[in-house]
Amino acid sequence: MKKRDLKQKTRKLKAKVKALRERLATATAGSEEAAAAPSAPRKVPAVSPLAPAGGFPALPVIDGVEFAVAEAGVRYKGRTDVMLARLAPGTAVAGVFTRSLTRAASVIDCAAKLAAGGDAGAGAAILVNSGNANAFTGRLGQESVDAISAGVASALGIPASRVFTSSTGVIGEPLPHDRILARLPDLTAALSANAIGAAARAIMTTDTFPKGAAAEYAAEGGTIRIAGIAKGSGMIAPDMATMLSYIFTDARIAPPLLQKIVSRLVEDSFNATTVDSDTSTSDALIVAATGRAASAEITDLRSAAAKAFARHLHAVMLDLAQQVVRDGEGATKFVEVRVTGATDAANARRVAMAIANSPLVKTAIAGEDANWGRVVMAIGKSGAVVERDRIAIRFGDLLVAENGWRSPDYSEEAASAYMKRDELVIAVDLGLGRAATRVWTCDLTHGYIDINADYRS
Amino acid sequence: MKKRDLKQKTRKLKAKVKALRERLATATAGSEEAAAAPSAPRKVPAVSPLAPAGGFPALPVIDGVEFAVAEAGVRYKGRTDVMLARLAPGTAVAGVFTRSLTRAASVIDCAAKLAAGGDAGAGAAILVNSGNANAFTGRLGQESVDAISAGVASALGIPASRVFTSSTGVIGEPLPHDRILARLPDLTAALSANAIGAAARAIMTTDTFPKGAAAEYAAEGGTIRIAGIAKGSGMIAPDMATMLSYIFTDARIAPPLLQKIVSRLVEDSFNATTVDSDTSTSDALIVAATGRAASAEITDLRSAAAKAFARHLHAVMLDLAQQVVRDGEGATKFVEVRVTGATDAANARRVAMAIANSPLVKTAIAGEDANWGRVVMAIGKSGAVVERDRIAIRFGDLLVAENGWRSPDYSEEAASAYMKRDELVIAVDLGLGRAATRVWTCDLTHGYIDINADYRS
Repeated sequence: MKKRDLKQKTRKLKAKVKALRERLATATAGSEEAAAAPSAPRKVPAVSPLAPAGGFPALPVIDGVEFAVAEAGVRYKGRTDVMLARLAPGTAVAGVFTRSLTRAASVIDCAAKLAAGGDAGAGAAILVNSGNANAFTGRLGQESVDAISAGVASALGIPASRVFTSSTGVIGEPLPHDRILARLPDLTAALSANAIGAAARAIMTTDTFPKGAAAEYAAEGGTIRIAGIAKGSGMIAPDMATMLSYIFTDARIAPPLLQKIVSRLVEDSFNATTVDSDTSTSDALIVAATGRAASAEITDLRSAAAKAFARHLHAVMLDLAQQVVRDGEGATKFVEVRVTGATDAANARRVAMAIANSPLVKTAIAGEDANWGRVVMAIGKSGAVVERDRIAIRFGDLLVAENGWRSPDYSEEAASAYMKRDELVIAVDLGLGRAATRVWTCDLTHGYIDINADYRS
Repeated sequence: MKKRDLKQKTRKLKAKVKALRERLATATAGSEEAAAAPSAPRKVPAVSPLAPAGGFPALPVIDGVEFAVAEAGVRYKGRTDVMLARLAPGTAVAGVFTRSLTRAASVIDCAAKLAAGGDAGAGAAILVNSGNANAFTGRLGQESVDAISAGVASALGIPASRVFTSSTGVIGEPLPHDRILARLPDLTAALSANAIGAAARAIMTTDTFPKGAAAEYAAEGGTIRIAGIAKGSGMIAPDMATMLSYIFTDARIAPPLLQKIVSRLVEDSFNATTVDSDTSTSDALIVAATGRAASAEITDLRSAAAKAFARHLHAVMLDLAQQVVRDGEGATKFVEVRVTGATDAANARRVAMAIANSPLVKTAIAGEDANWGRVVMAIGKSGAVVERDRIAIRFGDLLVAENGWRSPDYSEEAASAYMKRDELVIAVDLGLGRAATRVWTCDLTHGYIDINADYRS
């Protein structure tokens, strides 16, 4: 070979080496994920693709409620993990809690305090920490709750029996409550009517966005405002309550009536959602009504005023519950399951939840596969009263199955196109009666496994 | 640069290019996985890492049973998808089937034929196809079953009422039974006493290995042999039966007694396993006893002979059931959940299944995370009778929690080391009574989602 040719060859080889190095760099950046055995996290979107557009909503200030947050370092570093809400004297408090038999100390404590009634005139407070659930922590669990309640009571000058606490995060680790107590002076000093957004962030665990919802309506005598926050986003199959949610209103309503309304509304909002069929030890919903609105007091469950209040409160609860599903761990699809034609409400719910919790239905949705056979399977295993040949199944408006088999109008192409949407409706008519229900869920993706295969470390 | 140096440089660059190409090839092979969005399949092991060592076992020939397989092209190409088993005159047949309310036509047909009794003296046959479940196929479903039954009956000279069929695969697609009928002459001609291994392969769907198990023992008068096959490997939460399993024996036993024994044994074998909590529309277990053994007839459920037979039959059923779990879609860990100290059997089972079916427990196991808090959660949501402070939890022999919180002896290091094993025991003592149970499951991995996010296409 001539020297000139050799030089040219060397140049070409150098260029080749450079190109290969670049391709290798690109490939290796990818292969951090490739190396992901089940235990190594892959990239999970920073924010759920199903998050509401526009970010955290503008929530109205609720007269009589103030918030503060702090970085106590319970588990997380470099982020807020404690929120304190002060409720003015006269605030009515209601709550619904998980029925789990291994529920957390704070849940047991809140339920007991609410059952005991307590002095609404004295004011109240809610303190929530994220990072540690203080669940299955034995005697230490109640000690932590007592210490926090006493600390908050003393800082705010209210009875400890009016301090409601929640803890969310890892189960089975003693809660380092001293870290929270150490922040109480700062928290008390920082209380502000405008910090509900910061509060929504402080209670997050694996949530990818803070969750808020509000309603505002004209009642007799004046406007009533409702503002709430919630957190998810795994271990979500609420049983009598949910994850954590705190809703505030200035409505004038006595505690027993507020409790009745809240207990009734939870069934078709928080309890109608599921991410993964696993029920948290910490589920808690607390609704606080400060009574500061100029509107008339709501005194009768059957009154138009109570119905209007319930309607707006339900809208806030459902909005928050759906946001929790939209932030379901790894979720890429938001799914409404509608069941109609059931013999009764219990059977409608059994069918809806069997579909919403089926791993095979949820993985098919993740894969955008119009696998309606798995919906059939889920209906069949539900144990509900069904007759195979009366079932009709729709994906959105597309009739996919009826009379015991695939609809003659079924188009795989149309069904597959529908499955590409972010928001899906799976509708099942059982053809037997008049009962109906709706529940909400998300798909089951690699992201769920990434997040949960190595949550603690 | 001198020509010699240039030559040397060129050689070096060539070597560099070669090395970079190799590294790139390696990196790119990995990044097929990296590119795996939820919908794109990643590499799933060709054979489950939990498959029994040594491959398909040597199964004894059962006198009076012959097998044949064929490629009918029901759905799969280039593999066998139909198996025919001919059972000699005098064979007693028993069966247990899914309780799903959307069960397949063949399941309904088998159950009806067994309930009707039929003429055991006439001989019998089992025909199974893979690739299509013939479930939720309406009127066409029964027509396919009738056509296959009539075809097999005519080919073998037995009544159609003694032809038992099963179908496994996609739900909701009409079964192209003509393709099966077209292969009947070949199947009949190929019947052989030695083809049970081929039969085990022909019934596979997403299974990664064929499943067989056997027992052989000395009974009064002669040896009794039992040989069985089964298939999984998703939609596994058997309800009153399981996936598909066919067990053959030469024992002499009348159909009613055989049915009693099989129905009883299924509870602690197939019904004690779960892969994904989803119950198939096609679950079927058929046990056929040809009566060709020289041993004495088994006539009394309480006799030593019946007990010995039940013990060996149970071993075969449990072995097959566990193989199905070992081949659970995407499984990398085989998990035994032991519950002791329950107030009764139902509560023991409720706790065991809540743990075995929890997505959060199963993803933690996939991630080798000793997240015993999730076991606490699952116990809590089970709805079983439990007292938080009496629960003890062990991973293998390691005591992790007792008296309502983490054991003082708990070592995260030891627990983490234990979780790296392929086979795990999660043991829960409820501390309340004497009832106990064991169930078997596997972990929930990316592989499960890969397999199921796009099963149909």
